Amino acid sequence: MMDYPLLLRTLLLRAAKYFSKKEIVSIFPGEVFRYTYADYFKRTCRLANAVTSLGIKRGDHVASLALNSHRHLELYFGIPCMGAALHTVNFRLPLHHLAYVLNHAEDKVIFIEEDLLFFIEAIKDQLKTIDHFVIMSQSKEMPATSLKPAYLYDEWIEQFPPEFDFPDDLSEWDAALICYTSATTGDPKGVVYTNRGIMLHTLAAGFTLPASENDCLLHIVPMFHANAWGAPFFGVGQGCKQILPGREVLNMEVICKIIAQEKVTFTCGVPTIWLMLHQYLEKGGWHDFSSLKSVFSAGSACPRFLMEELNEKYGFPITQAYGMTETSPLALAAMPKSYMSDWPKEKLYDVKSSAGLLVPGLEMKIVNEKGHEVQMNGADWGEIFLRGPWIAKEYYREPEQSGRFFAGGWLHTGDVGTIDEEGYVRLVDRTKDLVKSGGEWISSVDLENAIMAHPKVSEAAVIAIPHPKWQERPLGCVVVKPGETVSGEELKEFLKDKVKATWWIPDHFVFIEQIPKTSVGKFSKKDLREMYASGKIKVPEG
Amino acid sequence: MMDYPLLLRTLLLRAAKYFSKKEIVSIFPGEVFRYTYADYFKRTCRLANAVTSLGIKRGDHVASLALNSHRHLELYFGIPCMGAALHTVNFRLPLHHLAYVLNHAEDKVIFIEEDLLFFIEAIKDQLKTIDHFVIMSQSKEMPATSLKPAYLYDEWIEQFPPEFDFPDDLSEWDAALICYTSATTGDPKGVVYTNRGIMLHTLAAGFTLPASENDCLLHIVPMFHANAWGAPFFGVGQGCKQILPGREVLNMEVICKIIAQEKVTFTCGVPTIWLMLHQYLEKGGWHDFSSLKSVFSAGSACPRFLMEELNEKYGFPITQAYGMTETSPLALAAMPKSYMSDWPKEKLYDVKSSAGLLVPGLEMKIVNEKGHEVQMNGADWGEIFLRGPWIAKEYYREPEQSGRFFAGGWLHTGDVGTIDEEGYVRLVDRTKDLVKSGGEWISSVDLENAIMAHPKVSEAAVIAIPHPKWQERPLGCVVVKPGETVSGEELKEFLKDKVKATWWIPDHFVFIEQIPKTSVGKFSKKDLREMYASGKIKVPEG
Repeated sequence: MMDYPLLLRTLLLRAAKYFSKKEIVSIFPGEVFRYTYADYFKRTCRLANAVTSLGIKRGDHVASLALNSHRHLELYFGIPCMGAALHTVNFRLPLHHLAYVLNHAEDKVIFIEEDLLFFIEAIKDQLKTIDHFVIMSQSKEMPATSLKPAYLYDEWIEQFPPEFDFPDDLSEWDAALICYTSATTGDPKGVVYTNRGIMLHTLAAGFTLPASENDCLLHIVPMFHANAWGAPFFGVGQGCKQILPGREVLNMEVICKIIAQEKVTFTCGVPTIWLMLHQYLEKGGWHDFSSLKSVFSAGSACPRFLMEELNEKYGFPITQAYGMTETSPLALAAMPKSYMSDWPKEKLYDVKSSAGLLVPGLEMKIVNEKGHEVQMNGADWGEIFLRGPWIAKEYYREPEQSGRFFAGGWLHTGDVGTIDEEGYVRLVDRTKDLVKSGGEWISSVDLENAIMAHPKVSEAAVIAIPHPKWQERPLGCVVVKPGETVSGEELKEFLKDKVKATWWIPDHFVFIEQIPKTSVGKFSKKDLREMYASGKIKVPEG
Repeated sequence: MMDYPLLLRTLLLRAAKYFSKKEIVSIFPGEVFRYTYADYFKRTCRLANAVTSLGIKRGDHVASLALNSHRHLELYFGIPCMGAALHTVNFRLPLHHLAYVLNHAEDKVIFIEEDLLFFIEAIKDQLKTIDHFVIMSQSKEMPATSLKPAYLYDEWIEQFPPEFDFPDDLSEWDAALICYTSATTGDPKGVVYTNRGIMLHTLAAGFTLPASENDCLLHIVPMFHANAWGAPFFGVGQGCKQILPGREVLNMEVICKIIAQEKVTFTCGVPTIWLMLHQYLEKGGWHDFSSLKSVFSAGSACPRFLMEELNEKYGFPITQAYGMTETSPLALAAMPKSYMSDWPKEKLYDVKSSAGLLVPGLEMKIVNEKGHEVQMNGADWGEIFLRGPWIAKEYYREPEQSGRFFAGGWLHTGDVGTIDEEGYVRLVDRTKDLVKSGGEWISSVDLENAIMAHPKVSEAAVIAIPHPKWQERPLGCVVVKPGETVSGEELKEFLKDKVKATWWIPDHFVFIEQIPKTSVGKFSKKDLREMYASGKIKVPEG
């Protein structure tokens, strides 16, 4: 067979040629911008020419600090296809981390959404490698900025020709994108995605997921978060209609309107988004989900009650998947098998609410504390190990951390799970979030899901706190729904028949305003632990 | 990303672990054999151990001369996953070609279907490299044979353990399968499929085609023909139910029964098969196609009237695809785009009856006689050039032929086609089958399709014959339906408004018993030309 490199270029050229009439839609407050793949391709060529004019060449790194927009989608292909790598920066990082990742990746140019300009203004003196600032805005006016030299994206790229000879002699091992994990401890760690890895991830996603050219994708996952879970590559690869909701992504009223008006069929997001959606719907929020075919939840375990409610009450066809920044990210998807179609609903939700089944192309083992692979019995716990062509082999320029997380040629995910006889994985916890009480493990995730099923509870997170006799005990941190009250005793009573053993039930519950979230919207147990340590969360005596 | 090789092993292990309950069904006359993927995997392990015991090692070649059966499917994974390559031999080759390909590939072992034993008995003295003969039979008795040493497949592999440590350190560039093209001129030419090529073809097929784990695949395409078009790899990769119809594959009554009883959803085959099916149905043959979701026709252009009749009259959901031995084979598929769903039926059949749209991952150009890429206007002709990771780079040990067909890093397919503004390719002809009349080209394929649309015609092929004034003129070779008669004048009249120009209409028609077929079931124009040259086909005077 030909030694033809796996390059994103191949997908871009095909889409431009054969899906030139298909649409890309970018949502701005009070404005809907639409163009075709033909126009998308021309602007992506202009962008590649523009970036080349700055002296950016193969192997260089270019940063984006941007919302989900058509411009970000132009960067997603324009930068890798001309041979550089796009570093998608999480704008929810604390400022010192923002400066850290831009310096660590040695980015030479940064593309900044106008709304996010103040972040870069605030750290500009700390930036060591960035020579050019490109501001992305719907306005035709350059906003006031102290950044120099600065260009207004649309106006700037318009000066360059709409053709570009995307090179076919890159190596498939060349970096295409870079993403840093949101650090729970220490500095953020970078993952470099190769052209090969993204191409294989894209094909495998298409092999696995029920989506095709007929689908209309809504990009809810931020484009800085693990390649937007690969959806932009899948979309261009298939020639799908794509919707980029910009800063409206957290506005559930607008999201529901977009789904109905644009006839969205496919979307993905973290459970936090689906909790927001559920709250909007519970308040009677308008929606029409008739066009939706598949929704995937990933990033952290989606509470089962939430999946059941969204599916059964609102016809929102949500299923779980599993991945992480280090896995490009798709690794597992919880699609039921053909012979499960006549299973009772309850049993089918066991499947759909699991983390899923291994995607073709990868290898997985679940390894217990003794280093043995666990049985496929749905009961034994172990850490999930993964390997495959779209699994990271290291953290970028972090040999020490890499040695630890990638020992033996497998990614040690830090996620603890079980695997049942059908192969479906169920997440028990993060290794570091497990509660060890009296020498036995308690799953904080199971407890959280059980607590969040209480009708008066909006969100719940469980952390381990020290205990003189049992070493550790779980502490329930609970956010009550507006206008409701609930007591710890009520919750204990409620949990009695819903947890694995009565000794799993937290001795104490604290009621807080909100669960702190990480920069990608997951519950931040690190922050909860700090709140507990600093006395901001006080456990009632007794 | 990890340097994790793309090996068939990854698909096999996943299927064995997570789809162990799914079924593989092998049809024999009067007998249906069923087993699970769990059993399939065990026997594939036994096979790998058995083959290893013969001294077969990495890089060796092993031949199969076999029907579509569960045993052949065991070879499909067992041989490549242990590191050797499976050479699937076309048993319809003439005997001298059979000996040629076995010697040319230097096969060390051959697996022979009992029904096909006489072929090998007939050429055994010519075989230079084969040391072992394994006979595949439903019988528990070793058939009488002069081949030595010979083993009875089931009995033989049963002696070996049902576990095998399939190596994970093969190179993805290692050969997995070998297939020889049916030579129209000279000796057959070999194509070596790498693990990488097959893995990418498999993922891309899943990305492109509307099939998933829920599908039940019926393998009509012979497993010696271009990897059975990749369907066995797709099937194991997804964990699909698979049906292997053995020697019943040409029995349309049995095929229709299988489709209904096993609830087949997906199948592929050459137009010759669909012509046979159509004839069976036209005679009132029993069928129930309600389970079928997709059928693909490829190998040669499927007459449009046939596609329309099968779809409209019989609910047989057939669409075209395009590929060849050198392309693994999937290169184009004629699935309509989302926005075509409300197109009028007639226009939609223009799409469905085209050769299709380029599959993601490949590059195509259509090049005219001047070496320029033709416009996407549906009119200009050119030769189809392809490149990509599952396109052959050469013929095995044929540097001279390879230089010709793979010049410039592109496969020169030898197929002439047009491409319309939507990107759909329409095959005009094979370069060597075009008729050049008065300096202008005539498409033999267009003429054949027009002639075959006549209600009294069963099959038709058009070849060029010399002409004193026009250099070449088309000759229509026609097979009339049983009990019907039709004249050349009638056909000329019929064609008047159905061809591009009246001068395309053949001056002469000859009526023959049957169109000679190649060993893979395509019309053999080479044989027709020989019949004409030798006077077996006589053109009426005038």
